[in-house]
Amino acid sequence: MSDTLFYSPTIEQDRMLPETESHHCVKVLRKQPGDAITVTDGQGVFYDCSLVDAHPKKCMVQIHGILKQPKSWPIRLHVAFAPTKQMERNEWFVEKATEIGVDKFVPMRCGFSERKDLKQERLNKIMVSAMKQSKQAVLPQLTPISSFEEVILTPFDGRKFIAHCYETEKQPLAQTYRKGENVLVLIGPEGDFTPEEVNQATQNGFESVNLGTNRLRTETACLVALHTIHVINHL
Amino acid sequence: MSDTLFYSPTIEQDRMLPETESHHCVKVLRKQPGDAITVTDGQGVFYDCSLVDAHPKKCMVQIHGILKQPKSWPIRLHVAFAPTKQMERNEWFVEKATEIGVDKFVPMRCGFSERKDLKQERLNKIMVSAMKQSKQAVLPQLTPISSFEEVILTPFDGRKFIAHCYETEKQPLAQTYRKGENVLVLIGPEGDFTPEEVNQATQNGFESVNLGTNRLRTETACLVALHTIHVINHL
Repeated sequence: MSDTLFYSPTIEQDRMLPETESHHCVKVLRKQPGDAITVTDGQGVFYDCSLVDAHPKKCMVQIHGILKQPKSWPIRLHVAFAPTKQMERNEWFVEKATEIGVDKFVPMRCGFSERKDLKQERLNKIMVSAMKQSKQAVLPQLTPISSFEEVILTPFDGRKFIAHCYETEKQPLAQTYRKGENVLVLIGPEGDFTPEEVNQATQNGFESVNLGTNRLRTETACLVALHTIHVINHL
Repeated sequence: MSDTLFYSPTIEQDRMLPETESHHCVKVLRKQPGDAITVTDGQGVFYDCSLVDAHPKKCMVQIHGILKQPKSWPIRLHVAFAPTKQMERNEWFVEKATEIGVDKFVPMRCGFSERKDLKQERLNKIMVSAMKQSKQAVLPQLTPISSFEEVILTPFDGRKFIAHCYETEKQPLAQTYRKGENVLVLIGPEGDFTPEEVNQATQNGFESVNLGTNRLRTETACLVALHTIHVINHL
């Protein structure tokens, strides 16, 4: 496997790199025909390739070998979060979460949300570059932003948690979660969930959890929740 | 405890807020004499105060109550890291690590380091604001940047780990670390430690660990290592 990784979801069908990847390959890295490169489809497969046509917009490659590399965690790990007002905080969370491993990002609009919409394209670019940088072959999913209600009413086959700061009966996530369980965890906006949202979630099978005693920023709480699940599954 | 927290390491002696805190209190938050504020000394104590003199550069307060709040983790947790080239990545790591909890940051110069120096002042500001934001009363320590040799030769009373990407015998940190142990963990630069550095560390009592299978950026590895320790101590 060569050191630079490229992303092409359609590599198996068209043997081609998308425009941005082609540009990076030819204009930035100056790859020449015959050079070896590795391409992932973002669906669990690495393709050992050689460059055939070093076209700056549509590189053509030849596939020499296929290496299946499923994700490194055994469960489905979904995080639904209220994007923060400062876009860069959402961006770093998405980068870091992709590096440590997550299956699905579910941005949601909450009662106290300061940000009601989200540009997906830039976040997708960050996910792709974080996947490549961390040498993974699976790209997480990013759903369009949806309402809190949609999120809690969507069926999920696994444990469902809501992390909030209200003084209700809460278990520490690290203590209640059991290795091997699928997880959907909800993280609220800067101003937390509304009490009504917490009730709705509880009535829909979500368990209240805390992530420790320190008050965490939204994006920190998201990352902490994901990594807590990874650690338990790693024990 | 009022919602806005201020930092004054000398509050007990001089009943005064430092210049930046005074400015924030008077010019930004428009606090008036008589208003209640909470101040921490960064050494484990919250002071319930009222504003006496709303001076924009040296606020004077009166102390009405004292609340001791030790840190929320039971061990000494030190991270020695090679600062990344991009300063913003160091800044967010310091912010996030302060939020989730750390006792000491030890920046170090390694063989493959792309950054040989570090402006401490800005990182200290970030630590203070993260401590206040996460409602803690203990400010982590940030040592001046030192050489790799100094770091591994400094005595430490606890487990000493080095996280690297070489194919040597390594334990997953989550599996080898035991609840209650003090920890010093070393995280290398973008280009990893040199093989010699790994040998030196091993000869000085550092155990080689991995942080999972994904290749993590330096700043992500730092945060993942710290949170792994927190999760184990939380079980």
